[in-house]
Amino acid sequence: MIDTIRPHLAATDLAALKSELASSNPDQVAQLLPTLTPTEQALVYRVLPKSTALYVFELLDHDEQASLVEAMSMPDAVAVIEQLDADDRIHLIDELPARVAKRVVGALDGSTKLSVQSMLGYEPGTVGRILSPHYVSVRRAATVADAMVAVQSSGLRSEHLNTVFVIDEERRYQGLVRLADLVRADPAASVAVIAEAVDVVASATDDAAVAARALQRRDLDALPVLDREGRLIGAVTVDDAMDAIDQDTSATMYGKAGIADLGHSNDRIRSEKLTTGFLYPVRVRLSFLIVTLIGGLLVGGVIDAFEDTLAAVVALAIFIPLVMDMGGNVGTQSTTIFARGYALGHIDISQMRRHLFREQRVGLAMATVVGIVGGLAAYVWQGAPNDIPQLGLAVGISLFVSVNLACFLGFALPWLMIKIGLDHAPGADPFITTIKDFTGLFVYFGLAAWVLNIV
Amino acid sequence: MIDTIRPHLAATDLAALKSELASSNPDQVAQLLPTLTPTEQALVYRVLPKSTALYVFELLDHDEQASLVEAMSMPDAVAVIEQLDADDRIHLIDELPARVAKRVVGALDGSTKLSVQSMLGYEPGTVGRILSPHYVSVRRAATVADAMVAVQSSGLRSEHLNTVFVIDEERRYQGLVRLADLVRADPAASVAVIAEAVDVVASATDDAAVAARALQRRDLDALPVLDREGRLIGAVTVDDAMDAIDQDTSATMYGKAGIADLGHSNDRIRSEKLTTGFLYPVRVRLSFLIVTLIGGLLVGGVIDAFEDTLAAVVALAIFIPLVMDMGGNVGTQSTTIFARGYALGHIDISQMRRHLFREQRVGLAMATVVGIVGGLAAYVWQGAPNDIPQLGLAVGISLFVSVNLACFLGFALPWLMIKIGLDHAPGADPFITTIKDFTGLFVYFGLAAWVLNIV
Repeated sequence: MIDTIRPHLAATDLAALKSELASSNPDQVAQLLPTLTPTEQALVYRVLPKSTALYVFELLDHDEQASLVEAMSMPDAVAVIEQLDADDRIHLIDELPARVAKRVVGALDGSTKLSVQSMLGYEPGTVGRILSPHYVSVRRAATVADAMVAVQSSGLRSEHLNTVFVIDEERRYQGLVRLADLVRADPAASVAVIAEAVDVVASATDDAAVAARALQRRDLDALPVLDREGRLIGAVTVDDAMDAIDQDTSATMYGKAGIADLGHSNDRIRSEKLTTGFLYPVRVRLSFLIVTLIGGLLVGGVIDAFEDTLAAVVALAIFIPLVMDMGGNVGTQSTTIFARGYALGHIDISQMRRHLFREQRVGLAMATVVGIVGGLAAYVWQGAPNDIPQLGLAVGISLFVSVNLACFLGFALPWLMIKIGLDHAPGADPFITTIKDFTGLFVYFGLAAWVLNIV
Repeated sequence: MIDTIRPHLAATDLAALKSELASSNPDQVAQLLPTLTPTEQALVYRVLPKSTALYVFELLDHDEQASLVEAMSMPDAVAVIEQLDADDRIHLIDELPARVAKRVVGALDGSTKLSVQSMLGYEPGTVGRILSPHYVSVRRAATVADAMVAVQSSGLRSEHLNTVFVIDEERRYQGLVRLADLVRADPAASVAVIAEAVDVVASATDDAAVAARALQRRDLDALPVLDREGRLIGAVTVDDAMDAIDQDTSATMYGKAGIADLGHSNDRIRSEKLTTGFLYPVRVRLSFLIVTLIGGLLVGGVIDAFEDTLAAVVALAIFIPLVMDMGGNVGTQSTTIFARGYALGHIDISQMRRHLFREQRVGLAMATVVGIVGGLAAYVWQGAPNDIPQLGLAVGISLFVSVNLACFLGFALPWLMIKIGLDHAPGADPFITTIKDFTGLFVYFGLAAWVLNIV
């Protein structure tokens, strides 16, 4: 396709370009656009048939949308942005340079501008950022027939029309009715009678992923968002809920792996940049590697401190990897179990003492097994042959301490980070690595020095 | 609540129990049930009002459902199971002991039995396991009014009625119509005219998570599942798609952390067992720790092999943690980027050479920076003061090799595991740890021995 339109672009032959694009399919155009210069993109976009233009735009990633919008004239840009869903609009504006974003928001139509400004007022990752201010609602006195008329006369997209909210005279939320129930009900019946899910609601400041999981648990198509007085102010739709859950999971996984990027919270954009870019991945990954480098040197300091012990019994060095790897793996297990349990609601932050206690019991059991097996292996391999049977004891006890510590830190550190509001900040894993390596090796060499009576 | 019903249970006073439970809310009952013995559960469940019983049952986890079903009489069990959604039915049957499962399936009603048997024939994790054989479809000659009648007369749950599929005379799929579009369309119009999404389909053997993401990308409420001849055989609904994505992500995260459990693939059950149990987490976590233990000893073997070098220059041991941690962190970054990229569609397995090449370029850049910084730090800290300037070179080059290798393995190993069908099998991370530690330390000590002219 690029071959057929390239000459028209070069000649700025808009008529030819237009007829070429008239029959193209949106997916193809969406794949083509990012390969063009911004100016060419704006040109191509402009001559697209009205019916496919918006659809093509929505197929682009938010950063691709942003660079296209930057190349457009302001009236064109505003026209496109006003047609978007409220949450997509926010994502796009988030991607624009501050200067451009300000001009675009200023040029928006009154009610859209108000909605954008209020959404931008909420923290990223909250319900306020993904709620749609557009939904269908009826008063509780309404009949099923009234609700059907409300749906029929709504200008919303079909995928956002599966739910009708029921409110009272003060706009206070009373429940929701699924479209299929309306279709199957007696038109003269009252909507209040068939309303359900009065208890599943969110507020704009709630965590988006938590709200999304509430929607998921009850198989809803839309989750009502209420203000403090219980009045309906918007809805989170199922598609946005799915995205919010993905986002949350991605943030956890990238955080755990030490891939920091505070600028981009959108997981699709981040994943794409990480798998296709060069400077971007180098930059975000290196920043964390430098932290790890400092940690590795700190841990080396422990070995440095015990250089005399090591010089006397060089075989001690052989078990450094074992003590480090074992604590490392246990720590990753614990942070992963914490992360999944927290996301799925099995870890309750207010009951942290109970969770910590349980995890520590598991840790104690594993540490006992690992300590005995590892200690025996060390004794048989290096202890007995070299006539230093105490080596087995030193390895066993250090493994025992490391595994216990890694379990504790694997639950306690992420919990602490959530407590101080650092949820999903660059993960706890690299810190745990340093702390448990430091402690594990300190115990190992300290014990070895003591039992070997060298110091 | 437990206090009020306990005496009735003890006295087996069914009438009193029934009146006590008549006014209870389903969430409370669902929380109460798992705290009772299976026999008590069956008793309580039996006297629940018909209207809430099924709802309570669905609020239970699959393993809780399974233990309740085991305690029920066979006719009661069959009656409950027949009322469940097709995919929940399969999950529940998967949790039952084989002997019980066989009897239950045998006692099911003809068409339900057939559906269960065919679903059990598909691999876990495929579309066949989550598709619902119940959906609303109309012929392409039907009008909007016909489709509305089909919805109105359907016995399906409302949340599965947002989509009507359009098929031809041979049941071949022609597209879908959203319920809201039907409601807003002219009743006399042809459904074929407003049908959409003809190109987004799945087959029963497809990966469930991949199909779920196709549904997500197009904001569909249901994804049609076709046989080889393009005939409609079922649908994946949006709620099941969300669960499939969660499942897939959980499997990746647990796999990466070395928390193996081939028996339970349901992420909610697994997460709950891991956060509340004792023997279960100890067992699944220990199995992997033993692998790590062997790996740690193998890596120790490298140090053992260079014991003479180490004895001559004990300061060499100081940088063992640095070489290990750096490779470890880079490896985790790479496997995480691979896992997210693969899940979100940015990594294309058929283009693996290109992805590997790109990742290796990133690795080369990071390895250069890390190697220089780490090497300089080693030189300044231990090389120059101890009069062994070559130490900086050995550390720098080993870091360079480790980081490059970790990047390569972080992409190549998961790819290999997917290639040989081990997708989501206990992750690649622990293997990578062993390989890159082994190689990194081998290079480190080998180089050190060489540049120090000791061996």
